[in-house]
Amino acid sequence: MTFKIGLLGFGVVGTGTAKILLDPFGRHPVLKEITIGRVGVRSLDKPREIELSPQLLTTDLESIVTDPEIDIIVELLGGLEPARSLILKAIASGKHVVTANKAVIARFGDEIYAKANEKGVYVLLEAAVGGGIPVIKPLKQSLGANRISSIMGIVNGTTNYILTEMSQKGADFSEVLAKAQELGYAEADPTADVDGFDAADKIAILASLGFGGRVKREDVYCEGIRQVSAVDIAYADRLGFVIKLLAIAKDTVKEDSDTLELRVHPTLVPKTHPLANANGVYNAILVEGEPLGQVMFYGPGAGSGPTASAVVSDVMNIVGILKSSGKTKELDPLLSCIHQHYCQIAPMEDLSTRFYARFLCRDVPGVIGHLGMAFGDHGVSLESVVQIGIRGDLAEIVVVTHDVREGNFRNALAAIESLEAIDSIPSILRVL
Amino acid sequence: MTFKIGLLGFGVVGTGTAKILLDPFGRHPVLKEITIGRVGVRSLDKPREIELSPQLLTTDLESIVTDPEIDIIVELLGGLEPARSLILKAIASGKHVVTANKAVIARFGDEIYAKANEKGVYVLLEAAVGGGIPVIKPLKQSLGANRISSIMGIVNGTTNYILTEMSQKGADFSEVLAKAQELGYAEADPTADVDGFDAADKIAILASLGFGGRVKREDVYCEGIRQVSAVDIAYADRLGFVIKLLAIAKDTVKEDSDTLELRVHPTLVPKTHPLANANGVYNAILVEGEPLGQVMFYGPGAGSGPTASAVVSDVMNIVGILKSSGKTKELDPLLSCIHQHYCQIAPMEDLSTRFYARFLCRDVPGVIGHLGMAFGDHGVSLESVVQIGIRGDLAEIVVVTHDVREGNFRNALAAIESLEAIDSIPSILRVL
Ligand SMILES: NC(=O)c1ccc[n+]([C@@H]2O[C@H](COP(=O)([O-])OP(=O)(O)OC[C@H]3O[C@@H](n4cnc5c(N)ncnc54)[C@H](OP(=O)(O)O)[C@@H]3O)[C@@H](O)[C@H]2O)c1
Ligand SMILES: NC(=O)c1ccc[n+]([C@@H]2O[C@H](COP(=O)([O-])OP(=O)(O)OC[C@H]3O[C@@H](n4cnc5c(N)ncnc54)[C@H](OP(=O)(O)O)[C@@H]3O)[C@@H](O)[C@H]2O)c1
Repeated sequence: MTFKIGLLGFGVVGTGTAKILLDPFGRHPVLKEITIGRVGVRSLDKPREIELSPQLLTTDLESIVTDPEIDIIVELLGGLEPARSLILKAIASGKHVVTANKAVIARFGDEIYAKANEKGVYVLLEAAVGGGIPVIKPLKQSLGANRISSIMGIVNGTTNYILTEMSQKGADFSEVLAKAQELGYAEADPTADVDGFDAADKIAILASLGFGGRVKREDVYCEGIRQVSAVDIAYADRLGFVIKLLAIAKDTVKEDSDTLELRVHPTLVPKTHPLANANGVYNAILVEGEPLGQVMFYGPGAGSGPTASAVVSDVMNIVGILKSSGKTKELDPLLSCIHQHYCQIAPMEDLSTRFYARFLCRDVPGVIGHLGMAFGDHGVSLESVVQIGIRGDLAEIVVVTHDVREGNFRNALAAIESLEAIDSIPSILRVL
Repeated sequence: MTFKIGLLGFGVVGTGTAKILLDPFGRHPVLKEITIGRVGVRSLDKPREIELSPQLLTTDLESIVTDPEIDIIVELLGGLEPARSLILKAIASGKHVVTANKAVIARFGDEIYAKANEKGVYVLLEAAVGGGIPVIKPLKQSLGANRISSIMGIVNGTTNYILTEMSQKGADFSEVLAKAQELGYAEADPTADVDGFDAADKIAILASLGFGGRVKREDVYCEGIRQVSAVDIAYADRLGFVIKLLAIAKDTVKEDSDTLELRVHPTLVPKTHPLANANGVYNAILVEGEPLGQVMFYGPGAGSGPTASAVVSDVMNIVGILKSSGKTKELDPLLSCIHQHYCQIAPMEDLSTRFYARFLCRDVPGVIGHLGMAFGDHGVSLESVVQIGIRGDLAEIVVVTHDVREGNFRNALAAIESLEAIDSIPSILRVL
């Protein structure tokens, strides 16, 4: 038997995907049964790293998703449109879909999975989170016996590269960003990465899989890494932490109901924590559940080859199902999306976490007392108060709190900002 | 629909499995469709942590594997017999099988999978390697697009606990082993763990999955941790290494054919290596392939809850297939075993690796020259020669080599042993 795939997009990941499919020797034997039927691109004249027979290439992507010869559509266009519409049309034509597009799934997953269920087709997305790291399928297929309590991870390679470089070289954000852009690790418009939006797409997807409910992308609280400075990285280091952009989904059982914390922000991670050692463009995702405890998945979070490995594994998965079951009665509940309800998301004020804050102030002896009082008044207890440096004629004080309600901490900060002796509060970061 | 499982064994893992199945709330909804049909044990009178209705329990295990009401047999007995025969009978009766038994699969996998393929049933074994860590299914289902070049890992929690304790407390092997036995982390007869046999079972299984061929268990070279001393751990530390019991399967392309290195031994691992941070009873498995690069799976390698998580995930997997495909045409090639040939294993003499060796010697100035000459004569080049301590009236010299052929290194050692100035060679360890 052979199975034909229709590739939408032939860029970084599309090319990596074709490379694997065109060179199956030494890989899983089922790959020999998969061929590339059509390839959709924007421009037919662009020079390509791989020579495909010209009649495979087309700019008419609709004709691919409706082609009766094609069994599986692989969407590697990126962006919201035409990706969303083409995925929906492919489903409507009864095709299974593989996508690496976290942006589309995080925003239109409900619509896409509802249609896929109606039509009895699979929409697989291993490559959308963690690049080459198997994490979506393990969450769906291997961890479902557990009550998941948290999923947290480093899911954006660009920001992890930047933070790692800043920490190893003592360099500042803008300097490292410029270098990352030169090396191709960051895009010309770096917003999606450095402002945390890409990580937010990914944690929305992971949360939905792990917690068995739909998640609205706009419910993810999102802070990027622009405000992280070399100064804070150095202080964190002295206190035993590294700073990582973490994406976090966490079950918090409140009096009456299950709610989910859902957030992306730079975080002080203890150096002994498993996530602390994922550096550079590597990603790592830690899942915690009962009775499992903690498991971590670590590997290359992006790049042509690793991402293509995940894409092709999804294609093989569908081919395995087609070969074994022929016509399916219903979708496998471990591979399809069966969520009906939306997860309830806890407001950020209710979050309970530790904080790191850095203050610039005049009159040090006085100010420590005032800080302590202001925090105390708002129920914030301090783990440590350290006066570390002098910046011009101002003293720098770093505070780490115990677990506090975020709302209380914000109120305390408002009071502190109005203190005579406080010049400014250059950094506020959460601590794991 | 409900699906009935027959549990063979109701010990540590069997009890954990029942706990999950009897308390499905908050887990994957498919669990509500799975019930425990029968439970086979050795003794009906033993007090049990979980009360089961007495008519579920039986000592007649054959009647379970042939029971027409049972869809899936879950083998959690341990040991070779009656586990092997019962698995074969279950298959002969057309039942799918889930097992946590690495010993049986590593030795009788060929026989078991041949019968399973004939009968068109699945034999899943996620719990057999890495306890609760999803690693078997990811290898089969998510990494098959790659040409795997190596699989290496810390796959035995007992020895990792012992080595971690030795390194953190500076304690000696026998002392820590006694403590581990007291805590229940090591068995009364610790041979299977400390001599590396359990790790050898596991790497035989992983190699077979990753490299797509059958592996004979007796082909795994196996050295345990009894000879690792606190002294070597301390020297390794000063040289930038931790000592771990690694199980390694590695593709080595020789002139004419693909051969596999297959070995378990204590290894000096650079502190910056991802595997270096897996401590205590945690396991970690690193897989390398093209185009993926490196991915690592980390988590609890044993214990009732984590192992049961893996067992139940396999059961859910089969139930998902039964629900979706009904009668299968053929087995899914990603979930079944399709190996025909045996992997060719490279002899240990041909292994190319770095070595660490510790010598006790008289007459230090002379001996360093002699050592260098003896190594040089056998084509062994040295990365470092360090005289570190004095032990009684003997000097202690530690040598780390560059990559050498193991055969050459052994020949050099034979020559060195006969040197007048050499008292003894207390340790020889491989370096990653
Ligand atoms: N790159 C990574 O490391 C990585 C990692 C994980 C996930 N992903 C995801 O994978 C997807 C693809 O990323 P990529 O890096 O491969 O993107 P890319 O290099 O920009 O390639 C996009 C491809 O899609 C084609 N395309 C885009 N819009 C089109 C349109 N309207 N009509 C026809 N063709 C169109 C382009 O055609 P032309 O070639 O003619 O321009 C190009 O071949 C994205 O969803 C991305 O988020 C990427
Ligand atoms: N424990 C772990 O952390 C772990 C981790 C990974 C994999 N595993 C694997 O899981 C399997 C089970 O391990 P375990 O720790 O659960 O073992 P266990 O606690 O010793 O339990 C074994 C169970 O099997 C029953 N049994 C043994 N031989 C029998 C026989 N001949 N006839 C009838 N019943 C028999 C025993 O019955 P009674 O209760 O009546 O004595 C007991 O219920 C093994 O293959 C092991 O390698 C264990």
